[in-house]
Amino acid sequence: MRYLSFVHDGISSWGMLGESGIVDLGQHLGAQFPDLRSYIAAGYPDAASLAALPAAVALETVTLAPVIPNPDKIVMAALNYYEPGQDRDDKPDYPVLFLRLPASQIGHGAPLIQPRSSQKLDYEGELAVIIGKGGRHIAREEAQSHVAGYAIYNDGSVRDWQRHSHQFTPGKNFVGTGAFGPWMVSSDALSLPPDGLSLVTRVNGVEKQRTDTSRMIFDVPYLISYISTFTPLEPGDVIVTGTCKGFGATRTPQEFLTPGDLVEVEIDGLGLLANRVAVEVS
Amino acid sequence: MRYLSFVHDGISSWGMLGESGIVDLGQHLGAQFPDLRSYIAAGYPDAASLAALPAAVALETVTLAPVIPNPDKIVMAALNYYEPGQDRDDKPDYPVLFLRLPASQIGHGAPLIQPRSSQKLDYEGELAVIIGKGGRHIAREEAQSHVAGYAIYNDGSVRDWQRHSHQFTPGKNFVGTGAFGPWMVSSDALSLPPDGLSLVTRVNGVEKQRTDTSRMIFDVPYLISYISTFTPLEPGDVIVTGTCKGFGATRTPQEFLTPGDLVEVEIDGLGLLANRVAVEVS
Repeated sequence: MRYLSFVHDGISSWGMLGESGIVDLGQHLGAQFPDLRSYIAAGYPDAASLAALPAAVALETVTLAPVIPNPDKIVMAALNYYEPGQDRDDKPDYPVLFLRLPASQIGHGAPLIQPRSSQKLDYEGELAVIIGKGGRHIAREEAQSHVAGYAIYNDGSVRDWQRHSHQFTPGKNFVGTGAFGPWMVSSDALSLPPDGLSLVTRVNGVEKQRTDTSRMIFDVPYLISYISTFTPLEPGDVIVTGTCKGFGATRTPQEFLTPGDLVEVEIDGLGLLANRVAVEVS
Repeated sequence: MRYLSFVHDGISSWGMLGESGIVDLGQHLGAQFPDLRSYIAAGYPDAASLAALPAAVALETVTLAPVIPNPDKIVMAALNYYEPGQDRDDKPDYPVLFLRLPASQIGHGAPLIQPRSSQKLDYEGELAVIIGKGGRHIAREEAQSHVAGYAIYNDGSVRDWQRHSHQFTPGKNFVGTGAFGPWMVSSDALSLPPDGLSLVTRVNGVEKQRTDTSRMIFDVPYLISYISTFTPLEPGDVIVTGTCKGFGATRTPQEFLTPGDLVEVEIDGLGLLANRVAVEVS
C-alpha cells in the first residue's frame, strides 16, 4: 500500500495511491483522521476496504506534501553505510544522531531551497522509516512491529552552517531542505527488514551516490531500539537512516548545488524523489 | 507578570501567579486558549484585567508542568559564558546549538530522572527565553520585540550518551531531564535584555555554578537572529541560552547526580527551579 500527503484544490489532505489514482482519504475520513499521522496512530484501520474505494483524484493534479508533514520528531543518522570493500569490523560503537525540525521539510517536486546565506547546499540520499506503533525501550527483536512503512529522504545540508560548530543543527534545519517522499510504502508491501534495496542519488541525471541497504552499518531494528532508549517513539515519527559517501562535500573537487539543479533519489520499491533547486526568495 | 502551566485536580491548565495564588486561566479561557502557548501566540490579550481576577487556586495545591509543555521546538546553546578573567576576544565564531525534544521536559518539583542505562546524569543551570511573536530573519535590533518572557532551565545531561558520538542528541534528550520552571516572567517585568542577573546552581545546598547574564558570550538578541536565519521561530518556542563551567563533568574529580540529590537553579527575578533526582522505574 502506498500512502501520501498532498494538497488538492488548496486543501491539505492524505490518501492512498493505486494504479488509477489517489483515493482521497482526507475527504472520506477527515473528521476522524485529519492527517496521515493520525490514521497511522489508529493502526491504519480498514486499509484493504479503503483501498477499494474509487480513486477520484489524479496524481498529476495534486501538490505532494512531505509524507508526514507534522511528525512529533525526525531523528536523523549521519553516514551509515559500509563503503565497498570496507572491513565490517571497522565501525563506530554508536550511530551519529541529530534532529531535524518538521518546518524544514518539503514534498516530492517542491523546490529544494538554497538559502541566501550560503553557497554550500548539498544532497544526501537516504532511506526513511515511519513509525507505526509507538513505544519506549523497544527491543531489537520487537522493532519490526513498530514500523508503519518506508519512504525516501533527501537530507539537504547547508555545509558551512553545519560546520559553524561541532553540532550539525543549523546546517540540517534550513527551511526547504528536507525532501521526504514521494509516498510511504507500507511495511507489509516490502520484504523486511529492508535488505539489498539499491539506493541511488543523481544530480542532473549523473549518478553521485550508490549503495544498497544491506550495507547499512546500524540497521533499522538497531536504530529503533537505540533511539527508544532515550525518547519514546510516537506514531508518525520519522527515522532517517543515514547516507553513504558520494555527496558533494565528499567529492574532489567539492560540488555544491546551484539553482536549477535536479536532485533525484531512487530506492528499489519505494519510487523516485525528485526536487529542483531554487534560491530562497522571501 | 508570572505565567505558569500546571495540573490541578488531574486537569492540565495554565494561568497567572499573583501574591494570593493562581488565576486559573485554563478554566476561564480554555475554550479559546487551551494552553499557555496559544495565549502567547494570540499576543497575551487582556493580561492586566485577567490578572485582576480572583486567584482561586493555591500554588501549593498544584503540580507544576514545564512552563511551555508543548513548544514547537526547543533550541539549546551549549557553554555560553565567559569565565571570570577570560579575554572577551577569546570566543568562538558561532554558538554551539542542539535541539531538545519536548518529551524530555519536566516542571519544577518533578523528579529529575536518572536513566537505568547511565550513572552519569549531570546538571546545567541556564536562562530560558520564551518566544512571543514568531518570525524568520529577525534582525538583532528587532529581537527584543519577539520575546514573551524568561524562565529557568536545568539542561540535565546524560554525559556518556552525550559522548556516544560527536553529536549530543541522545544525552540531551532522555525523558525527565529537561527541567523548565517554575514559571515565565513576562519580558515587561524585567529590565531587558537581561543583563547582570546572577545565575546560581546548587546541589544539596552546595553552590556548583555561578555566573551572571552580562557574561553571556552570544546574547539573547544574537541567538534569536542567528536561529531565525535557518528556521522560523514560533510563539512558545524556547531558546535555552547555555551554561557556564562548574557542572559535574567539569569538576575534578567529576561528580554526577545520584538518587535523592536536590538540584536548584536560581536566577535573579525569575525564582528558583528545584528538582530531586530519582531513578527511572518504568
